[in-house]
Amino acid sequence: MPNPPRRSDQLRDVQIQSGYIPSNPASVLYQSGNTIVLCTASLDRSVPAWMAGKGKGWVTAEYNMLPGSTSPRKPRDRGGKIDGRTTEIQRLIGRSLRAIIDLNLLGENSITVDCDVLQADGGTRTAAITGGFIALAKAVEIAIPGSRIGDGPIRDSVAAISVGVVDDIVRLDLDYPLDVAADVDMNVVMTGNGKYVEIQGTGEEATFDDTQLAELLRLARLGIATLTQKQRDALAGT
Amino acid sequence: MPNPPRRSDQLRDVQIQSGYIPSNPASVLYQSGNTIVLCTASLDRSVPAWMAGKGKGWVTAEYNMLPGSTSPRKPRDRGGKIDGRTTEIQRLIGRSLRAIIDLNLLGENSITVDCDVLQADGGTRTAAITGGFIALAKAVEIAIPGSRIGDGPIRDSVAAISVGVVDDIVRLDLDYPLDVAADVDMNVVMTGNGKYVEIQGTGEEATFDDTQLAELLRLARLGIATLTQKQRDALAGT
Amino acid sequence: MPNPPRRSDQLRDVQIQSGYIPSNPASVLYQSGNTIVLCTASLDRSVPAWMAGKGKGWVTAEYNMLPGSTSPRKPRDRGGKIDGRTTEIQRLIGRSLRAIIDLNLLGENSITVDCDVLQADGGTRTAAITGGFIALAKAVEIAIPGSRIGDGPIRDSVAAISVGVVDDIVRLDLDYPLDVAADVDMNVVMTGNGKYVEIQGTGEEATFDDTQLAELLRLARLGIATLTQKQRDALAGT
Amino acid sequence: MPNPPRRSDQLRDVQIQSGYIPSNPASVLYQSGNTIVLCTASLDRSVPAWMAGKGKGWVTAEYNMLPGSTSPRKPRDRGGKIDGRTTEIQRLIGRSLRAIIDLNLLGENSITVDCDVLQADGGTRTAAITGGFIALAKAVEIAIPGSRIGDGPIRDSVAAISVGVVDDIVRLDLDYPLDVAADVDMNVVMTGNGKYVEIQGTGEEATFDDTQLAELLRLARLGIATLTQKQRDALAGT
Amino acid sequence: MPNPPRRSDQLRDVQIQSGYIPSNPASVLYQSGNTIVLCTASLDRSVPAWMAGKGKGWVTAEYNMLPGSTSPRKPRDRGGKIDGRTTEIQRLIGRSLRAIIDLNLLGENSITVDCDVLQADGGTRTAAITGGFIALAKAVEIAIPGSRIGDGPIRDSVAAISVGVVDDIVRLDLDYPLDVAADVDMNVVMTGNGKYVEIQGTGEEATFDDTQLAELLRLARLGIATLTQKQRDALAGT
Amino acid sequence: MPNPPRRSDQLRDVQIQSGYIPSNPASVLYQSGNTIVLCTASLDRSVPAWMAGKGKGWVTAEYNMLPGSTSPRKPRDRGGKIDGRTTEIQRLIGRSLRAIIDLNLLGENSITVDCDVLQADGGTRTAAITGGFIALAKAVEIAIPGSRIGDGPIRDSVAAISVGVVDDIVRLDLDYPLDVAADVDMNVVMTGNGKYVEIQGTGEEATFDDTQLAELLRLARLGIATLTQKQRDALAGT
Repeated sequence: MPNPPRRSDQLRDVQIQSGYIPSNPASVLYQSGNTIVLCTASLDRSVPAWMAGKGKGWVTAEYNMLPGSTSPRKPRDRGGKIDGRTTEIQRLIGRSLRAIIDLNLLGENSITVDCDVLQADGGTRTAAITGGFIALAKAVEIAIPGSRIGDGPIRDSVAAISVGVVDDIVRLDLDYPLDVAADVDMNVVMTGNGKYVEIQGTGEEATFDDTQLAELLRLARLGIATLTQKQRDALAGT
Repeated sequence: MPNPPRRSDQLRDVQIQSGYIPSNPASVLYQSGNTIVLCTASLDRSVPAWMAGKGKGWVTAEYNMLPGSTSPRKPRDRGGKIDGRTTEIQRLIGRSLRAIIDLNLLGENSITVDCDVLQADGGTRTAAITGGFIALAKAVEIAIPGSRIGDGPIRDSVAAISVGVVDDIVRLDLDYPLDVAADVDMNVVMTGNGKYVEIQGTGEEATFDDTQLAELLRLARLGIATLTQKQRDALAGT
Repeated sequence: MPNPPRRSDQLRDVQIQSGYIPSNPASVLYQSGNTIVLCTASLDRSVPAWMAGKGKGWVTAEYNMLPGSTSPRKPRDRGGKIDGRTTEIQRLIGRSLRAIIDLNLLGENSITVDCDVLQADGGTRTAAITGGFIALAKAVEIAIPGSRIGDGPIRDSVAAISVGVVDDIVRLDLDYPLDVAADVDMNVVMTGNGKYVEIQGTGEEATFDDTQLAELLRLARLGIATLTQKQRDALAGT
Repeated sequence: MPNPPRRSDQLRDVQIQSGYIPSNPASVLYQSGNTIVLCTASLDRSVPAWMAGKGKGWVTAEYNMLPGSTSPRKPRDRGGKIDGRTTEIQRLIGRSLRAIIDLNLLGENSITVDCDVLQADGGTRTAAITGGFIALAKAVEIAIPGSRIGDGPIRDSVAAISVGVVDDIVRLDLDYPLDVAADVDMNVVMTGNGKYVEIQGTGEEATFDDTQLAELLRLARLGIATLTQKQRDALAGT
Repeated sequence: MPNPPRRSDQLRDVQIQSGYIPSNPASVLYQSGNTIVLCTASLDRSVPAWMAGKGKGWVTAEYNMLPGSTSPRKPRDRGGKIDGRTTEIQRLIGRSLRAIIDLNLLGENSITVDCDVLQADGGTRTAAITGGFIALAKAVEIAIPGSRIGDGPIRDSVAAISVGVVDDIVRLDLDYPLDVAADVDMNVVMTGNGKYVEIQGTGEEATFDDTQLAELLRLARLGIATLTQKQRDALAGT
Repeated sequence: MPNPPRRSDQLRDVQIQSGYIPSNPASVLYQSGNTIVLCTASLDRSVPAWMAGKGKGWVTAEYNMLPGSTSPRKPRDRGGKIDGRTTEIQRLIGRSLRAIIDLNLLGENSITVDCDVLQADGGTRTAAITGGFIALAKAVEIAIPGSRIGDGPIRDSVAAISVGVVDDIVRLDLDYPLDVAADVDMNVVMTGNGKYVEIQGTGEEATFDDTQLAELLRLARLGIATLTQKQRDALAGT
């Protein structure tokens, strides 16, 4: 029996497997419906040369879709040119993670958060931010034992979700079929305390007005509150 | 005598020279304070192979900063890797222009809008959209004589402006010193009729709340109304 | 309690999850000890232009290590230069898979087998061949329903294992610590019927003689017989 | 009323706007007929690592045509391969400028002269040299206040012009239509004192003899004398 | 009168010209039938930065086919992508040469052995190893006067030959027509003392069994014994 | 006993081996003193797509220095960036060869002339032109049997030589030590009938006057007359 259709204000099912790669506790398999992203945070106990000697750390992110994550197969970025979409997404992930970390408290450590999409069904960039935060928090715990959200370099949690306008209905959490049909597509990145980190809303050969904007932001806030709780549960090991 | 400081809701002076390149009427020198962008639209009476035979047109944009536009000099993107910022900006310009054009009415014509920054003092991407629209509209007139805004492929005008939070004050139109000092930076792209095309707001290692968001959007709407009038004047030749 | 050390003629534990990516039955998660490789076969119902019209198919492979698969993190191949090791490995995988498929019976279909290493602990190339064969066989079943090993394009199974000389002892299935310590490293690719497809033996700043060669080949044959059975079980769904 | 045709020994009209970019006095908009080149000299108060500690300076040049400078549009050099023509031209500009500067007197300063073609109608490389010299001289004045031509690092001025054989007539200053029609095309770079810096003469699927060579060089000398005066006027601010 | 066909256990004629490039004694023109490879060893009295200060040397190799070495012409590797075959071959040459050199005895010297194919008729990689060894030995003599095989960094000689199965016959030394016709192709690298350095055997869409393997190795050993003698003669100057 | 020094109007010894690569009669080993260039012309009985159907042929050239041709070793152009000097030289060779061939008489054939420098001691580009012409003429004979200089596509021969000013003396044929010491360096390309194809004269941080120019051209003409005779002898097989 097929699932009943999702309500317009309903998230997809989210599954979080922390410690997915046996040798790296800072690895998270994040699933939201049929979207699956492997997030691994790698700690390097040094910083790039241009930052050395300041006592500060660095956090960056990379995003990639495995070729088998889509049908038809997505060719690899091997020609020396990363496509523009990939560049934008990984810059967004990096900014989002840096928004909630105090690099001065991280010490001269670098953390790279790799987000590799194993299966893509819409919302991969927001899954990467939400899952990537968990991997980052784990890596910070390794770098600085005892550090917790709000107590150490991690000032707050951060999560992200997409919202959009599809057939004139404002909806939460667009999967691929909804994303293709959407006239307006917006990604919202927000802290656990409910502050905006990033809003990226785009009319796809369409436009939107203030009323729609207000409803988009209301749904995003709702979804992120749920994701924030799931992140805290995953970090608490429940 | 130095100018009095700009008010927080005041645009920089805008100068628009249409037909700046003698041989190309679809060339615009757009100046906003000390930011100068040369926008040229090149018409090609064909479309890329993957679009051929559909009777539709195509519009794309490229963005580039000349090396001498900043101090210290900005090296050219010649290594086969366009930097991520450039990629993001030219994708934004392209989406913004495509939001207000009916590609079905353009026929099998391609228009490339090149935005080359001659002098950079903040707000180059929004200047490129606002000036690029004028170049695009001119090129459409060449492709389809008699076409006007709202009467032909160009459904509406489009313009863009930055807003931000600087020292806890919400401000319109960030020049470079303001941009560097801003905690929140937002670019808003809007049609002449006041609909949103794109909102991109980012906390730079900071966050923002709903009250600030409302004020950011109010100032952006104010600035874009003024720019829309200047665009129409430039196209009318006054 | 730690495991007892592996005997010199003993394989690591092998786990095979067929259909690992929900939307693609031709996806296999292949684990050999701590080495984990995701193999996905993507079917394209056409062939490259240079092969069109011959009624023949094509099979190729790509190999990649995710950055988080090793410690320290392995940077991505994004500079336009694939490193030599990657090139060699993916050519080996492709040749090995083509050795057991009759491309004339495949029809004008292309299959790309992607082998992405999620965790690396030695033997990733042989894992990629052994797991990649299962993904390939599944994809052939999709392309040509009813086809089985020996009945359709797949003439035989193919599997691979490493052998080596470590501290003067000839050993089967080198994990990373053994591989680093090995004086001689050999990869053997063999069909289910026990014919050689490929032998690649290298003295790492060392050499080997005929007696050692004979023992290396004996152990490889032993290991491949076991892997062949596991492949058949996985394809039979047991 | 159209202009009377240019005589075979007549230059195009030349306009020079020094200080064209408000924030950089070492910026020159150089126009020769319909050819427009923006030359900006950027001063860096250091030298490349391989020159450090010798007390010597460095001067280099880059040349680029903006996409909108020609019709049809010229694609950007972004693929990591600069085309051969661009490479040749910017090497020529750099050698020409270095021929008249005493790098020992420049101190450990680097000057990059960027020559960006806004509109191309033949003779862009000679315009770049002639205009680039003015930008260079301005930048040297900034680096070493009080330095003048012949008194400081700048030993002499340098200018360039093209000559050619068109329909068996030897002509001065080839615009694009003449350049296309020319059987022989020669660029001459000469100092203000009338010494040769560079002669590059090419038969385009044609050849030339000593008589033609003599006349080509006579016209070039004539043209360069005029350009030299215009350079001195521009630097004197008249 | 045409030559009688080669026997299945017969090498092609080998000619070795040591000191082929007048200014570099470590240059060897190696001819095997119609295959001609120029091997030059370049000595650099330093090592790469990552090896400095360990008192050890380094040996590496590069392989290249000149465009005119084949018909049709082989395009140059200039696109920033070395093809996979070239990468594999030059890694094989480098490993083979490093197998017989004691880098600790070489001191902090680097030797690059360049193998440029002037004419290709099969067996270019084995020719490159066999000829490259001579160039390497000469370069070591220059670096460390008086060093000989077995007395100094060079512990033993190394040579290579191809063997294969063609029309069910096991053959020594495949020229291009034999290579194309071969079902099994194997390259064997062996020291002067008869130890294996590398075995690379591949069924080209075919397989092979233990009996064939034994015969392939027997012929390879036979051929390499002859090549070893020719190498020693060349080094001895006879 | 060392050779007596060359007179200022004396060429180096020239040796020409036609048919140097056994399988390609259009291959020439050209030696001028210690400069050795291998020139091979490859015939392709088709033309690039953009030329097809016009009944015309195409001639192009590539230039490359083998790594072992200089000391210290010259790294290969494998990074996807051909250096500017290489680009300039191969464009010069191509233009020079096309100056003396009637592409309309060549039919739809393409000829690529590869000039690979085996040993470099100054004057490699002029050696490449002079030797490349012989390879080209041979390839034309293969394409169009019976064609001779002046009777078929080859309208005239072409050769090249360098001249320069060294210590205030005007000299013919600069080897590497002279080239380094030269204040003025000029390459002259001339037909067998004494017409100029190309003059490229450069003051290396120096200038030159009309008197020096006349003497430079007189010596070049003298040298080219000798080279023209040697080319004709080589083609005649004497």
